Amino acid sequence: MRTEAVDRLRAEVCRLHAELLRWNLVTWTSGNISARVPDADLIVIKPSGLSYDDLTPESMVVCDLDGAVVDGTHSPSSDTAAHAYVYRSMPGVGGVVHTHSPYATAWAARGEPIPCAITAMADEFGAEIPVGPFALIGGDDIGKGIVATLSGHRSPAVLMRSHGVFTIGADARAAVKAAVMCEDVARTVHLARQHGPVEPLPQKHVDALYARYQNVYGQRAGSPGEDD
Amino acid sequence: MRTEAVDRLRAEVCRLHAELLRWNLVTWTSGNISARVPDADLIVIKPSGLSYDDLTPESMVVCDLDGAVVDGTHSPSSDTAAHAYVYRSMPGVGGVVHTHSPYATAWAARGEPIPCAITAMADEFGAEIPVGPFALIGGDDIGKGIVATLSGHRSPAVLMRSHGVFTIGADARAAVKAAVMCEDVARTVHLARQHGPVEPLPQKHVDALYARYQNVYGQRAGSPGEDD
Amino acid sequence: MRTEAVDRLRAEVCRLHAELLRWNLVTWTSGNISARVPDADLIVIKPSGLSYDDLTPESMVVCDLDGAVVDGTHSPSSDTAAHAYVYRSMPGVGGVVHTHSPYATAWAARGEPIPCAITAMADEFGAEIPVGPFALIGGDDIGKGIVATLSGHRSPAVLMRSHGVFTIGADARAAVKAAVMCEDVARTVHLARQHGPVEPLPQKHVDALYARYQNVYGQRAGSPGEDD
Amino acid sequence: MRTEAVDRLRAEVCRLHAELLRWNLVTWTSGNISARVPDADLIVIKPSGLSYDDLTPESMVVCDLDGAVVDGTHSPSSDTAAHAYVYRSMPGVGGVVHTHSPYATAWAARGEPIPCAITAMADEFGAEIPVGPFALIGGDDIGKGIVATLSGHRSPAVLMRSHGVFTIGADARAAVKAAVMCEDVARTVHLARQHGPVEPLPQKHVDALYARYQNVYGQRAGSPGEDD
Repeated sequence: MRTEAVDRLRAEVCRLHAELLRWNLVTWTSGNISARVPDADLIVIKPSGLSYDDLTPESMVVCDLDGAVVDGTHSPSSDTAAHAYVYRSMPGVGGVVHTHSPYATAWAARGEPIPCAITAMADEFGAEIPVGPFALIGGDDIGKGIVATLSGHRSPAVLMRSHGVFTIGADARAAVKAAVMCEDVARTVHLARQHGPVEPLPQKHVDALYARYQNVYGQRAGSPGEDD
Repeated sequence: MRTEAVDRLRAEVCRLHAELLRWNLVTWTSGNISARVPDADLIVIKPSGLSYDDLTPESMVVCDLDGAVVDGTHSPSSDTAAHAYVYRSMPGVGGVVHTHSPYATAWAARGEPIPCAITAMADEFGAEIPVGPFALIGGDDIGKGIVATLSGHRSPAVLMRSHGVFTIGADARAAVKAAVMCEDVARTVHLARQHGPVEPLPQKHVDALYARYQNVYGQRAGSPGEDD
Repeated sequence: MRTEAVDRLRAEVCRLHAELLRWNLVTWTSGNISARVPDADLIVIKPSGLSYDDLTPESMVVCDLDGAVVDGTHSPSSDTAAHAYVYRSMPGVGGVVHTHSPYATAWAARGEPIPCAITAMADEFGAEIPVGPFALIGGDDIGKGIVATLSGHRSPAVLMRSHGVFTIGADARAAVKAAVMCEDVARTVHLARQHGPVEPLPQKHVDALYARYQNVYGQRAGSPGEDD
Repeated sequence: MRTEAVDRLRAEVCRLHAELLRWNLVTWTSGNISARVPDADLIVIKPSGLSYDDLTPESMVVCDLDGAVVDGTHSPSSDTAAHAYVYRSMPGVGGVVHTHSPYATAWAARGEPIPCAITAMADEFGAEIPVGPFALIGGDDIGKGIVATLSGHRSPAVLMRSHGVFTIGADARAAVKAAVMCEDVARTVHLARQHGPVEPLPQKHVDALYARYQNVYGQRAGSPGEDD
């Protein structure tokens, strides 16, 4: 199990959790990130209940796609079943992130999708950020809700009703970026609406911005980015 | 008095105050944490009026359960009477935290309980976060209000009317976690309601989430955590 | 001019500016602190236009009570006239702070005093935080407005109309504390009112809290503090 | 191309990006700064898609005033065309900054100018902060919108409709200051209006404050500053 790919992903998944803290997406031990091990039916995921200060690459847990622990000295995140379901169902997904980031979770608490009202949102999400069903933890219901909502949707983020955010990406870093940008646009549109109505961008503009953004960055070798 | 248990708690209580700062629960010298010394009628509590930068394990004050100083070179927190009353009245409590964290104190200023509207709140609090009576500092009134409100309530947090938050826990770390999560859910539900009504979760879902969360984590040896 | 007392105050005033940053009261180079030199008609004040990173004890400017530079290699803060007017008019004042901290300045922009609705505010301010007149910079108008508003008022903070906050104290640290607490209560009461009316505390409770707080801390040798 | 002036600007532009982070104006890799090379038809601009942690002076990109890369190992910011258009059209501009800072972008999402309601805003902006047209990225439309809106306007900041903020300055530091102050006043006026109407300052006061501020600081040798 101590293959080079797994070791690299343990370090990467561990390191990316610092981004959740840096961008204020998580509180106490909340939030978790996982990554799919390439060419293997395995994922690397955060251990349950550890402080962010105590996360190490070694503490990351390796599970199979049913969420069973394959390697690791800690219990995996209590959200492992949801992550695993997504990986089983969406072969293109290489990373999954879950947070209760406050502005996005506020939209989730109302069960209201975030309208695509600013260009940064059209770039990254290409559409409104949709709401998934309410689902209890402990089985496949959350995973099913994520997959049902995001399948065929441009948005890599879903607001799970009365719960929080799940994002997906080609790799863990892309899913983290989607979680960071989801909170950013959730906040900006929240603030905007406090002093008057905010119209969604016309569909043709959303389409143009999304196509350009995905294209320009899709053609690059390095990690995707956004600086406009 | 310089037993090993007391020394360990001085270090722990001192260290936990950094969590109040990290999660933005306190301003200037506000906020305080105490812990019960196991198998002794003693508590360890923050000194009064010291800057967070100047807190050391040695500056923590040891008091008896009437709030009288037993060991320490500083005066104990001006909230010591309230802490002591809680420890006298609730034998299961091993830690108490007090803050004026802004979103939670905003609910306290209105005298409005925080409805249990998101899953993270059902997990940790198992109910709405209740409001306690207005009480003046300087006697047992605050302590009585805390105990009267939290006795028999699932929530480890109470919003003392027009004042701030008190939380309890099996140990000081659990009480700190409750204070951190209280501000987190106070903020999310506050934000959610700014753009429309927010319904409490159905009681059966609250019960299921609370039972699972307390159970799963209760069976573990290590510190309780939350990462969903 | 290089007396020991002046050198000590240069270091103290320099150091206290870090508290304005730490508590998010200032933006870019905004905000300034001054202190009265004991037993001398002199003040020590921040230089104008320097980055917070570049402040050193040596860069602090010594002025007389008319605001004229007595010692220093930089120009004094553009608010020096207002500080100097306060020191000339209020002999008990040993420190003055000015900020545009966002929540307090929001109240100032509406010209609305902050009602004394929470216990922390009764402790520190003993009353509502009052609004002073609109006044243009460049003469004594701001200083006059501060003095006219705060003379005979319990509050050490005034919201200068459409401008920002000035606070006073027995020394610079006390004035900084008042500025920090002013923003804290401005934020909490702002948040509280977003979801319903907030009543001021009954006057008898304000009086009791204020009397106790000023008394308890007034009898101490060390710096005043607040931890309830 | 490795002239001393270019090297100095690479270091300066790199360093200034840390200010965008410090003042919470940017998220993930968003935001960009450029500077005009004195006495040359060249600009130095941020590379595209790099993490803020990975920015180095060497990674900054040198472009001509049509936005074509002249020197650099990375692609320039995807907003380079807009920056270049501004430099071609406004010879007095030495620095350009772009952000999606949340409060300012909230005003941009509604297409509402920020009224000049507080003295700090009169000082720095001398007027309301205007709204520019909606424009798609990828040609000169954004640049044209910026130039059309800011030409003849006192404000160094424009809220591009449904997009974000562009600021200009005599040098990059001045443009960064404008971006920082734009978010600061966007937030304060946003907060102020949440509890009642906020009147713009009378024009004569705006004029007096602006004239004094630009004058006092304009006569100085050092960098412009603001501390009142």
